[in-house]
Formats: sequence, C-alpha cells, structure tokens
Amino acid sequence: MDESSKVGIIGSGSWATAIAKMLLNNVPSINWYFRDQVHIDDFRRFRHNPNYLTSVEFNPDRINFSDDINEVVQQSDILILAIPSAFIKSALKKLTAPLKDKFVVSAIKGLVPDENLIIGQYFNQVYDVPTESIGVISGPCHAEEVALERLSYLTIACQDIKKGRAFSAFLKTPYIMTTISDDIYGTEYSAVLKNIMAVASGICHGLGYGDNFQAVLISNAIQEMKRFVDTVHPITRDIKSSAYLGDLLVTAYSQFSRNRMFGTMIGKGYSVKYAQMEMLMIAEGYYAVKSIHEINDKYKVNMPITEAVYNIIYDRISPAMEIRLLTEHLR
Amino acid sequence: MDESSKVGIIGSGSWATAIAKMLLNNVPSINWYFRDQVHIDDFRRFRHNPNYLTSVEFNPDRINFSDDINEVVQQSDILILAIPSAFIKSALKKLTAPLKDKFVVSAIKGLVPDENLIIGQYFNQVYDVPTESIGVISGPCHAEEVALERLSYLTIACQDIKKGRAFSAFLKTPYIMTTISDDIYGTEYSAVLKNIMAVASGICHGLGYGDNFQAVLISNAIQEMKRFVDTVHPITRDIKSSAYLGDLLVTAYSQFSRNRMFGTMIGKGYSVKYAQMEMLMIAEGYYAVKSIHEINDKYKVNMPITEAVYNIIYDRISPAMEIRLLTEHLR
Repeated sequence: MDESSKVGIIGSGSWATAIAKMLLNNVPSINWYFRDQVHIDDFRRFRHNPNYLTSVEFNPDRINFSDDINEVVQQSDILILAIPSAFIKSALKKLTAPLKDKFVVSAIKGLVPDENLIIGQYFNQVYDVPTESIGVISGPCHAEEVALERLSYLTIACQDIKKGRAFSAFLKTPYIMTTISDDIYGTEYSAVLKNIMAVASGICHGLGYGDNFQAVLISNAIQEMKRFVDTVHPITRDIKSSAYLGDLLVTAYSQFSRNRMFGTMIGKGYSVKYAQMEMLMIAEGYYAVKSIHEINDKYKVNMPITEAVYNIIYDRISPAMEIRLLTEHLR
Repeated sequence: MDESSKVGIIGSGSWATAIAKMLLNNVPSINWYFRDQVHIDDFRRFRHNPNYLTSVEFNPDRINFSDDINEVVQQSDILILAIPSAFIKSALKKLTAPLKDKFVVSAIKGLVPDENLIIGQYFNQVYDVPTESIGVISGPCHAEEVALERLSYLTIACQDIKKGRAFSAFLKTPYIMTTISDDIYGTEYSAVLKNIMAVASGICHGLGYGDNFQAVLISNAIQEMKRFVDTVHPITRDIKSSAYLGDLLVTAYSQFSRNRMFGTMIGKGYSVKYAQMEMLMIAEGYYAVKSIHEINDKYKVNMPITEAVYNIIYDRISPAMEIRLLTEHLR
C-alpha cells in the first residue's frame, strides 16, 4: 500500500459518503460501488449523493462510479466496506473477483448475520484475506459532522500497525485526526456493542428515566463492554479510549442516533415492528443484540444490559418490567 | 451511628434540599442550618425551600430549623455539609462546638479554597474529626431529578465501610440506590475534577466543536481524572464506576450543569467576570481548576484539559487558540 494505491468504496449511505469526502482530500480519484445505476446518474447530475449528506458537493469527474461490484474490486487495491451489516451477504453475492491481495477495511459497525463473525473474521475465513490485511475504521464519528467539517477523531485498527498507519494517511484532513490501534477485534466488537447500549439508553429514556440514571447506565455499559471484549479477545487495551468509550458516548448521548431512537420508541410502548417501519431505517442494535446474545452463549460473560435489551426485543418482555429488574444489577 | 442518630444539614441550596428530602424518608426529624432567619420563616410558611427545589413539599414540624450553626452541630450526631466550597470557611467561622465525635459527611464537590484540601482532609486537620468518621456523598445526581423522584444512584464513601453502610441507610428511598466505597479521596477529587471537565466541555461547545469531538474530550477527560487520582491517592479503584465516570457524564453532558454553562459562555467569547455575573451562580469549576492546578504543581500529572481550562480562565489565553492546541494532545 502506498500513495498511489487505488481506493474503492462499497456502500452508498451517509458513512460511505463521509469517507468518500475524506478520501478525496488525499487522492485524485476513487472507485465507488452503487447498487443502482439510477443513483449513480443522479449523483453525477446533482454533484452530490442524492440520498445522504446532500450538502456535500463532489466533483463526479474524480469518482469512477460503477454498479458492478467486481469492477470496483478489480480496480482497487484498498476496499472500504460501508454497508449495513444486515445487507453484507446479499451485497457480496455477485462478487467473484478475488479479495486476497486487497487491503480490506470494515467501516460497518455490525456483525455478519447468522455467522456471528466480525467483518474481519468473515473476510478472512470466506475470502482468504490475510488478517494483517484487514483494517477497521472506528469513530466516535457521526457522518453528519464530517459533512460539516467539524473536528473528529478516527481510530484505524490493523494488526499490522505499519499498514494501519499507511491507510490512515488516506483519511487525514484538517478536520480528521487519526489514531492507530492493533485491536481489530475489540474495535469491531465495541462498535457493535455500543449500538446495543444505545438501544438500552433509548429504552430507558422512553420509559422516563432521567439523566442521573443514564449516567449510571452508561458507566455500567462501558464496564460490560470491557468484560466482553477482554474475554473474547484478551489483549491489552484501554477501554476508556476514544474508539471504545468515545464511540459509546457519541452514540448513546446523541438524539440523532438511530439506535437510541429505536430504543426510545420501544420504551414508549411501540412494538418492534412498528418502530422499525416508522424509522424507515435499520437500527444496527436490533441485529447486534441477537448476535452478541448468541456469541455470549459460549463465553458466559455477565451482560445484564445486553440481556435486558435481548429480552425486550426478542422475548417481548415488558420494557418497564425488564428495566426495573436491570436497575437492581447496576451500581 | 444507629437508626436513632440525629442528622443535621449545613447548607440551604438545591443539593441540601434534595438530601433533606431523602433523609425525611427515613427519620422522623432532621436539624437544618440556614444562615438567614428570614429564609427559615419563609420555609415554614410556604412548606418548601423558598429558593431551591420549590416543588418539593416539606412538613416543617419535622424540621428543627436554626440560624445558629452551633445549635445544629450540638444537636446532631451526623452532620452533612452541602454548601458551595467557596463559602465553607466563612460558613464555619462562627462554629465553636466540637466536631470530633460527629460523623461528618461532605456533599460539597469542591476543595477548601487556599488550603487546597479535600473537605475530609480539612475536617480531619482543622476540626480533629477522625478519618474513619468522614463520609462523602457522590452522584451522578442532579438535585432536580431527586425532586422528581427519578431513580438515581448515590455512592457513599467512607474508609470505615461499616459506617458508610450505616449512613447510607439514611438516604435510601425507593428512587435512591446506594453503593458503598472506601475511596473518600478519589470520590472527592473526581467530584472536583468533573466540574473542570464540564467547563472544558462547555468551552468547546461554545467554540462550535460538535458531538464527535465532545465524545473524544470526555474519553480523554476520564483518563486524565484517573491519572490524577491514581497519583494523588493510589488505591485500587475502577474509574469507570458511577461515582467517577457517571458523575463526569451527568455533569459534562447536561445542558443544566452550571459548570458547562459557564464554559459555554467563555467559549462564546464572554469574559469570566461577565459570565459569572450573568449566571448569578458559582461555577465550582472556576475555583476547582485553580486548586487542582496548584496541587498538581507537586504531582506533575499530565493534565492537558485542566491546564487548557486554567490558561483560558486565569491566564486569559484565547479559548480558540488554547483549545486548538489541546486538540493536538487528544486521541
């Protein structure tokens, strides 16, 4: 990987668009996969993503759009995946081009459904991408604030620190600071867990719990996250770092977090189905809590918040009752 | 200390009033010191504190009001201090009654000005209160939410865990959960430091930094707090507990925190003097940052956020410039 490496993006949502904006600060052109040609045409015509971060203007001449995922993969040395985790398998269904020589970066913040693998594991096991060629981009980073060029910090995780550093140069801008980490497991799992915690935070908010309680919930949440990641992948890490605690804070304390919003609707008494229809969006936490619940069947980590969210969403236990029980486990 | 111990409160603000509400859930009567007889008369007439948490109704027959601090001290076995730290010396000026046989509890969240001592140290050194008879009440707990009877968690710190537990029974209510800790130093210092961090959070908000940055700031803030308390009083503690991280979160993320509000005005360009006048309130962080800066002269802990706030408030460095420099130290 060097300055001349070609970068491709798989995904067309707000986070993909924010990453494209960062990349084009550093490279002359990027490859970008969109599923629908009509969105590519609109992007070219309007000079912005027709659906997300519409205030960010792009020069379409610097973007090689394609609705053929294999074309984007073949033309890129570095591939950044930024699609909701629920869609990852269907998005890759048409992929036949080999990935094993690529540097594959997850910007997904979810687990592969059914497989219950982090994105890195999945690409390693299914697409033969070597572990040291897998990277993770982590926040705390709302795409909307990247659009506004507000100072944000990204953590780039890669077991090969040198590659991580080289890749981080593609994202650096005057408003993006980058930190390198060797913890791809902890970073991916934290990005997943924080969405569950944000759903929990929303449920409690919807039930009428106040700021005092939220502070206790989040303090317990980061302890629960630490217990889980330290068990599943025991390496030295400081869970208070931005990539873990910061990512939790920006999600759980944000009114704009879709996970928190989803939780708030559940807490207010809407059904899961209605909340999902109403939001017209995927709350990653909905899938995440099922995967983590299943993974934890093996590890048996004490996870009272995750279990409460699982019981509410999948076992239809009353939120008021379940959270009341949870309050006895917090301190 | 037992159920029949008499409890007295020194202080008449919102936190003192919230504590009175909790106490009267558990004991038939309390002693309560007010500086001005006129406020006592108003309290009796209106059946609520005339100035703070006015929605909370009290039965004045269960309160032995006095404007004589010595009377309140003599009649109490347990004394709870809940006054702004800036006023502690003047409040105690008339005190002649001995304290050494009392259980003295700090609900102050500040250091003794000039002395740069935590409240516990001050009562130990100046009033001969044995260390094991000193307690600390810590949040995360906005008094306003106690008034609304919203579920909140308090940490009671005391080096004598048995005494801490016995005292906690006086505060327990259906909406107040208590945890016991042996860390009076860490708890007091964290309560002080979090106010500095909330001022920093406000300054950055006032300057236009967004949520992504706030999450990074707070992640770095809790690391800075840990470095300081672990150096000043090295015992085993989990800084992610509610009494430390939770207390930081409820203050730094609250729009109603006076420290954050004070910082926001500074960030927006108001002078320190104007911000203080406008608020008509004491922002504890204003005093705290001077004390911690002076204490840290001895310990030399790396405290970039505290130093930035100090430079802005006391050395009149431009907030924009100082925070810009700070951003280089965060990660």
